[in-house]
Amino acid sequence: MTAHTDTTTAEELENILAAADAASADWAQRTAAERAGALVAIADALDAAAPELVPVAQEETNLPTARLNGELKRTTFQLRLFAEMLADGGYLDARIDHGDAAWPMGARPDIRRVLEPLGPVLVFAASNFPFAFSVLGGDTCSALAAGCSVVVKVHSGHPRLSAAVGRIATDALREAGAPEGLLALVYGTQGGRDALLDPRIKAGAFTGSIPGGRALFDLANSRPEPIPFYGELGSVNPVFVTEAAAAARGPEIVSEFVASFTMGAGQFCTKPGILLVPEASSMVAELSEASRPAPAMLLNERIQSGYTASLEELLKHDAVAPLGGTEDILAFPPAPALSVTTASALLADPEGLITECFGPSALVASYQSEEELLAVARILDGQLTATIQGEDTDAVAPELVRVLAGKAGRVLWNQWPTGVSVTYAQQHGGPYPATTAPTSTSVGTASISRFLRPVAYQGLPAHLLPGALRDENPLGIPQRVNGALAI
Amino acid sequence: MTAHTDTTTAEELENILAAADAASADWAQRTAAERAGALVAIADALDAAAPELVPVAQEETNLPTARLNGELKRTTFQLRLFAEMLADGGYLDARIDHGDAAWPMGARPDIRRVLEPLGPVLVFAASNFPFAFSVLGGDTCSALAAGCSVVVKVHSGHPRLSAAVGRIATDALREAGAPEGLLALVYGTQGGRDALLDPRIKAGAFTGSIPGGRALFDLANSRPEPIPFYGELGSVNPVFVTEAAAAARGPEIVSEFVASFTMGAGQFCTKPGILLVPEASSMVAELSEASRPAPAMLLNERIQSGYTASLEELLKHDAVAPLGGTEDILAFPPAPALSVTTASALLADPEGLITECFGPSALVASYQSEEELLAVARILDGQLTATIQGEDTDAVAPELVRVLAGKAGRVLWNQWPTGVSVTYAQQHGGPYPATTAPTSTSVGTASISRFLRPVAYQGLPAHLLPGALRDENPLGIPQRVNGALAI
Repeated sequence: MTAHTDTTTAEELENILAAADAASADWAQRTAAERAGALVAIADALDAAAPELVPVAQEETNLPTARLNGELKRTTFQLRLFAEMLADGGYLDARIDHGDAAWPMGARPDIRRVLEPLGPVLVFAASNFPFAFSVLGGDTCSALAAGCSVVVKVHSGHPRLSAAVGRIATDALREAGAPEGLLALVYGTQGGRDALLDPRIKAGAFTGSIPGGRALFDLANSRPEPIPFYGELGSVNPVFVTEAAAAARGPEIVSEFVASFTMGAGQFCTKPGILLVPEASSMVAELSEASRPAPAMLLNERIQSGYTASLEELLKHDAVAPLGGTEDILAFPPAPALSVTTASALLADPEGLITECFGPSALVASYQSEEELLAVARILDGQLTATIQGEDTDAVAPELVRVLAGKAGRVLWNQWPTGVSVTYAQQHGGPYPATTAPTSTSVGTASISRFLRPVAYQGLPAHLLPGALRDENPLGIPQRVNGALAI
Repeated sequence: MTAHTDTTTAEELENILAAADAASADWAQRTAAERAGALVAIADALDAAAPELVPVAQEETNLPTARLNGELKRTTFQLRLFAEMLADGGYLDARIDHGDAAWPMGARPDIRRVLEPLGPVLVFAASNFPFAFSVLGGDTCSALAAGCSVVVKVHSGHPRLSAAVGRIATDALREAGAPEGLLALVYGTQGGRDALLDPRIKAGAFTGSIPGGRALFDLANSRPEPIPFYGELGSVNPVFVTEAAAAARGPEIVSEFVASFTMGAGQFCTKPGILLVPEASSMVAELSEASRPAPAMLLNERIQSGYTASLEELLKHDAVAPLGGTEDILAFPPAPALSVTTASALLADPEGLITECFGPSALVASYQSEEELLAVARILDGQLTATIQGEDTDAVAPELVRVLAGKAGRVLWNQWPTGVSVTYAQQHGGPYPATTAPTSTSVGTASISRFLRPVAYQGLPAHLLPGALRDENPLGIPQRVNGALAI
């Protein structure tokens, strides 16, 4: 397979943006069925190309073949799920208010409101999910479903895979009758920045580090016309083990935790990075002795050096000690690493200790009382997830759930945060620095809202109204009519 | 009536923010019925205080008593409408995915998602609606309904009214059992800026000028933890009169337009600031001769001097001439002013000519063809509204509606943009610079979404779940269960 993966030139970028702009206007007018058909066509083409794509992904990311096959399946499932959602139409939030002379604040005109596509979207691909958060990942899928064109800034970690996915998807889109330029790829940091500043781009989406994401967020907001920027940045995904849970299921929790923080060599945004356990329990000892998986290659050398640097930094902290040997945890590839501290140390220096370390390591913190457990929950920054390992009878649970729901996009009970299912109710987001947009999600069907904006039509004759807003409901979608939902 | 309207000190601000933070945690846990009861209690108290409040508002804003009575009615209607919406519960977007071992991407856990309050909200009051976009205006109403506490930065144009409304509302909230500190007022620019930068504030909302709003938007985004900032800034609200409409209803359109752009002395964010008419029609002549209302006082001297400065600037433009005399249009109070230019001049210098002039003036632009009309629509910046005066048979209408829906939050047909009804389907927003948040609205029941963020609960036992997410649906609200909406 050969593909163009050189840095995009300014002239190429101009052509890409002009085509994306034209394609967006066309695509926004297509029916839900046409958009759904195109999404399914991409999914079919990618599934068929798995034998070609997975080996390239493996070469470029060091991820195992089984994981990559699963990730590709997730990616194409997501495309088909969004196609189904388009037929349902509930995401349009269609509202019809008939004119009403008796409206208490004064006669009401006929007003109808529906969500419409924002326009061309720029998606910055992530390193750690070469399929599911990359060229045809969640943001691209939801933007295309919403009726937007998409320009993807390719991640430098897997350029050949990106080119291949882009080519296969573009061919499938052409075959399905989608406009030329609906999906395009940009290579190189400068091209990504230039595209983000271009007035034709109407939203940005990003998955990656806090410094990188914040820089792009700031850039998007610095534009003469600022645009929505959906950045998913960092999260330590703390896990709170109650005293009762430690007593009832300590060893089970230990082995599940080790499996979760080492999954994908710890290169998941939902990796549980901090585990709080009762000091009075034997969990720290059990964690020290628990068997850990073999060393696994990280995505690339840049990730490896970032990982070892942040782990070395953590181990320099006065309140932190390695849990188990340190011989090979900084090796290449690194053995999974556990460190240990106390909850009171977390409370004393949250900035120094409660930080994301991207890779196969986690910090265990012992607490003296469940009051201290709550205190740690209260000082957290925004998180993608927060997990409780508890028992139904735990007195601390209601308050802990309440506090964590204020901090995290997803609160888990007796489960583990890695492995984010694509469903209708999924929420992958959270207050800053988990994301720059706490009111939205990047996984699950609700993510389509990122790329939609409401438009109201007042007094329009039926023939000028979008189908979603006509009285006879030709699309057969849920409509809120005079305030009451009708399905 | 006496009230404290001095600049808020740093110590007072600290007390206000600490109380707002505590109140927010409490209020978020209250039932929908409790929140609704408090909103209705405020509405009742404000209605009862109309004889006290309206004269103060009149003194401070120069607005006529009838208008102020109507605005207060709108404000209390809005509080009651939001109370009703709380009972419906559809705004929570409750989603329940039951665990499903056969989920195609792999076994799905039980995940449930609902919208929860963001936390304390800072609302910057507007000058031009001393009731409806001020202390108890739309943003305060939707934030309180959402379950957030509210700190209002009082507008310097009506401090005594603000203090009185704040006192009455605070008393009503206390009476209704709401937590102390749920609603508080801040006086002075510095206090507003300091509050916006405080980490306890989780969202900002603003209605006012482009420079003022952009400065606050930039400040909100500069925080270590950036927060959603909902700014409603500027809009010229263009009106497009088709050739057929001019021929069929020219004189009617002229008189309706004059009534709309002079309503409230032109001090509405939805004032139609530009009217496009066919050169071949007699509409320019009719506009020149149309009778205009008598001069009316503007809100205050600062508004008056800003108005005359921007009107003088416009009249200096080579392509602009006054339409009718100029004798008294810059006087105090000013007579309503019309100016005239051409659509080709708008196309040649959009930045110089398509600008908001806050006050009783509008620009009439004659066009040579409906192709030129479309060309003007295509170069517009974001708008709150765009209006078409057309006939059902207009060939240009479908494309004009499509282009304008991409530019404006609300598209009107044969109606006028002033007088924004509070309804379920209302949309008051639009792409920048109309607002800084094109995906939201500041009027209508959908505005509650501004102050909510999604939280998913995975694997929680029923007793730890919010009522909105329980299988037995104790709140009787719409739930999306396994992807299908059930009401």
